Amino acid sequence: MRHHPARLIRKKRDGGELAADEIRDLVAGVVDGTLGDAQLGAFLMAVCCNGMTAAETAQLTLAMRDSGRVLRHPNVPRAKIDKHSTGGVGDKVSLLLAPLVAAAGVAVPMISGRGLGHTGGTIDKLAAIPGYRTDLTCEQFQQILEQCGYAMARANAELAPADGRMYATRDVTGTVESIPLITASILSKKLAEGIDGLVMDVKTGRAAFMPDEADAVVLMESIVNVGRAAGIRVAALLTDMDHPLGRGLGNALEVVEVLRALDGDCPGDLREVTLALGAEMLLLAGVATDLDAARAILAGLWQDGVARQVFQHNLEVQGGDPRIVDDPGLLGRAPHVVAVEAQRAGYVTDVDPLALGHVIVDLGGGRRQPQDAVDPHVGIVLAKTLGEQAQVGDALAFVHARTAVAAAGAAAAVAAAMPVGEERLRRHPLLKRRMA
Amino acid sequence: MRHHPARLIRKKRDGGELAADEIRDLVAGVVDGTLGDAQLGAFLMAVCCNGMTAAETAQLTLAMRDSGRVLRHPNVPRAKIDKHSTGGVGDKVSLLLAPLVAAAGVAVPMISGRGLGHTGGTIDKLAAIPGYRTDLTCEQFQQILEQCGYAMARANAELAPADGRMYATRDVTGTVESIPLITASILSKKLAEGIDGLVMDVKTGRAAFMPDEADAVVLMESIVNVGRAAGIRVAALLTDMDHPLGRGLGNALEVVEVLRALDGDCPGDLREVTLALGAEMLLLAGVATDLDAARAILAGLWQDGVARQVFQHNLEVQGGDPRIVDDPGLLGRAPHVVAVEAQRAGYVTDVDPLALGHVIVDLGGGRRQPQDAVDPHVGIVLAKTLGEQAQVGDALAFVHARTAVAAAGAAAAVAAAMPVGEERLRRHPLLKRRMA
Repeated sequence: MRHHPARLIRKKRDGGELAADEIRDLVAGVVDGTLGDAQLGAFLMAVCCNGMTAAETAQLTLAMRDSGRVLRHPNVPRAKIDKHSTGGVGDKVSLLLAPLVAAAGVAVPMISGRGLGHTGGTIDKLAAIPGYRTDLTCEQFQQILEQCGYAMARANAELAPADGRMYATRDVTGTVESIPLITASILSKKLAEGIDGLVMDVKTGRAAFMPDEADAVVLMESIVNVGRAAGIRVAALLTDMDHPLGRGLGNALEVVEVLRALDGDCPGDLREVTLALGAEMLLLAGVATDLDAARAILAGLWQDGVARQVFQHNLEVQGGDPRIVDDPGLLGRAPHVVAVEAQRAGYVTDVDPLALGHVIVDLGGGRRQPQDAVDPHVGIVLAKTLGEQAQVGDALAFVHARTAVAAAGAAAAVAAAMPVGEERLRRHPLLKRRMA
Repeated sequence: MRHHPARLIRKKRDGGELAADEIRDLVAGVVDGTLGDAQLGAFLMAVCCNGMTAAETAQLTLAMRDSGRVLRHPNVPRAKIDKHSTGGVGDKVSLLLAPLVAAAGVAVPMISGRGLGHTGGTIDKLAAIPGYRTDLTCEQFQQILEQCGYAMARANAELAPADGRMYATRDVTGTVESIPLITASILSKKLAEGIDGLVMDVKTGRAAFMPDEADAVVLMESIVNVGRAAGIRVAALLTDMDHPLGRGLGNALEVVEVLRALDGDCPGDLREVTLALGAEMLLLAGVATDLDAARAILAGLWQDGVARQVFQHNLEVQGGDPRIVDDPGLLGRAPHVVAVEAQRAGYVTDVDPLALGHVIVDLGGGRRQPQDAVDPHVGIVLAKTLGEQAQVGDALAFVHARTAVAAAGAAAAVAAAMPVGEERLRRHPLLKRRMA
């Protein structure tokens, strides 16, 4: 006999702490529909207004995890460690990190999301690779993990199904910005992957989901504490998203950057964040005992081309065209490429990631609404980044667009987002805080 | 172009004050369905948690009033004054008050609700009168008001339709107990009646919607202030609901009590509350200039049988059997009537209205769920009230039930709700506070 939903909602409305069985009843109602839309909206708002204790958040996370299938990987003896980022502009770390960490002997079962708004999504980047399949069954996902050490898939209805309805409801009811709800949403899906550990990349800065650093730290602490309460190892880094990561922005353009990076040509910021997160994963897996050693292992595997081989192997088993590794041009290209030129000499004094993210959405490379289609080829390639010197006429960036009109509009917006001035600024430190 | 619902919900979530046009957009979305159930539930919860300013509550009330038709009564030159009560056990005041006030030259357009839980509803009491119609069209309602000075109808979908959906949603989402939402729900429907003034009877005590007196005072102030902001005259009384009102409890039994009262045989508490509320209505209508004069007018019309004539006239035009005025037995009677006898000598030390209200629901005379049917004949008649002396074997009350089994169960519960002891208690003052 379940608790009456209205009573549980009132309890949370009045600031009470819900017991484990009460939270399980609510989540069961989310899945079987006995908790109506209005009740779910009211419950989510009550959580937004009154919060949840750490114990409640952990129980919510576990109940959401257990709302569907929880994967086991009996044929994968390696430690299974995943990484999750709160998202940003130009964040293609997962595509580089997964083969690198898998090359070091850690299994990476990675289920990712699509992009929304100015924030990109790993699944959209992978969709830019001809033939690559991310709509895997649980069995396919497990097999691919066994075969090549990592697997990348989109969320499917078998895993943490409660999150699907809760996430969609939060989106329309103004209840996205709640630390307990964000924590439970992220961790329930990750726990359902069957992982032993998780490294969390919490972004802060203008283009981050949590722009304010204090908020981001609260989320970071919540995920670490709840993840550990749920029985997995967790580490977290707070990283900068006040500027874009790397130089390619837009789905295919980011895959090209990853392919070049695997060949050794990697922007410094992308390399730094990738190695920092990878080293944490190796520590959680027990493959290395300190961060310097872990970083050295990864740097070696990267330089020797092992990560490149693992990436190519994954392409083969997930249906992607493996020839792109040798010929990134096979990814295709938008028909209109326009340079954004410096109108004065000086230094690039800003690269506004939020403005650039909105340009990508305007170009068709991102979504305004969840059902929007995405153009894989459009985007921006930065020719200069923050603090770099420019002469009049130097290219600051290249806009890749579907039409000449779209390119011209985007170029003007990119120019505004990348002012040139007197001052030579340096980028903020990328790694702002660590919890491990 | 309307405001985006999620933005408005977030604004209220974050404690912001919504502007008039923002509230109108939300209410428009309630009526046309573009505000989804989840969004409505979240909005209501945000209001529950963060409240509303007086200005917001007034705007919500007006937007809900204007969500449907607002009646005008061009053929009724008299002042149009209604009364509304937050409800209780044995509260049959409306049935007595409307003909009495109409007899004094005030038009009373009264739209009422059905009962839910332990609280009775005027519409259910009227349904106990054979033939009486409360499902009136707006035109019928206006005509009846013109013909006999008062009209009684149930809510219809043309008046304040936003309230129907909001009320049903509040009921399932734990968002009933919110002063701004209660205020807007009550006043939007009353304002749609086309009234010039309203007397509000806010009950406090064990069987009241707001048991706590401080809460009841806040509601009272809210209704007075918002009603005046909406352009009508408002007075309010805070009255006691720590004991039942009158001696008949249950729909037909309450109508019988009203018929006897119109003949001059009226319990003192029922007479006191009826005259107090009626006097306020005469003051609001400008028919009398002070309460004593108003009370004297009403007492005279009551004693002279004018109220009785108006009641009978209303029965004729609303389809009710007018012969019940002379023969209340025509209302019918439950087949099993059982006396509850005193087991010891002493004084009645309590008459618990909440317990008695639940007995009536158990007998089938009230609703657990909105869709439940109601048995008009069952209920309780109090033979003794608080502080009255009883000898062993004296009847304390009579249970009217559909079956012998139901009667026996109810009798035991009534005995527990009416203990007899040493102390001779007096009832609390009925009128606790006045705002006018």
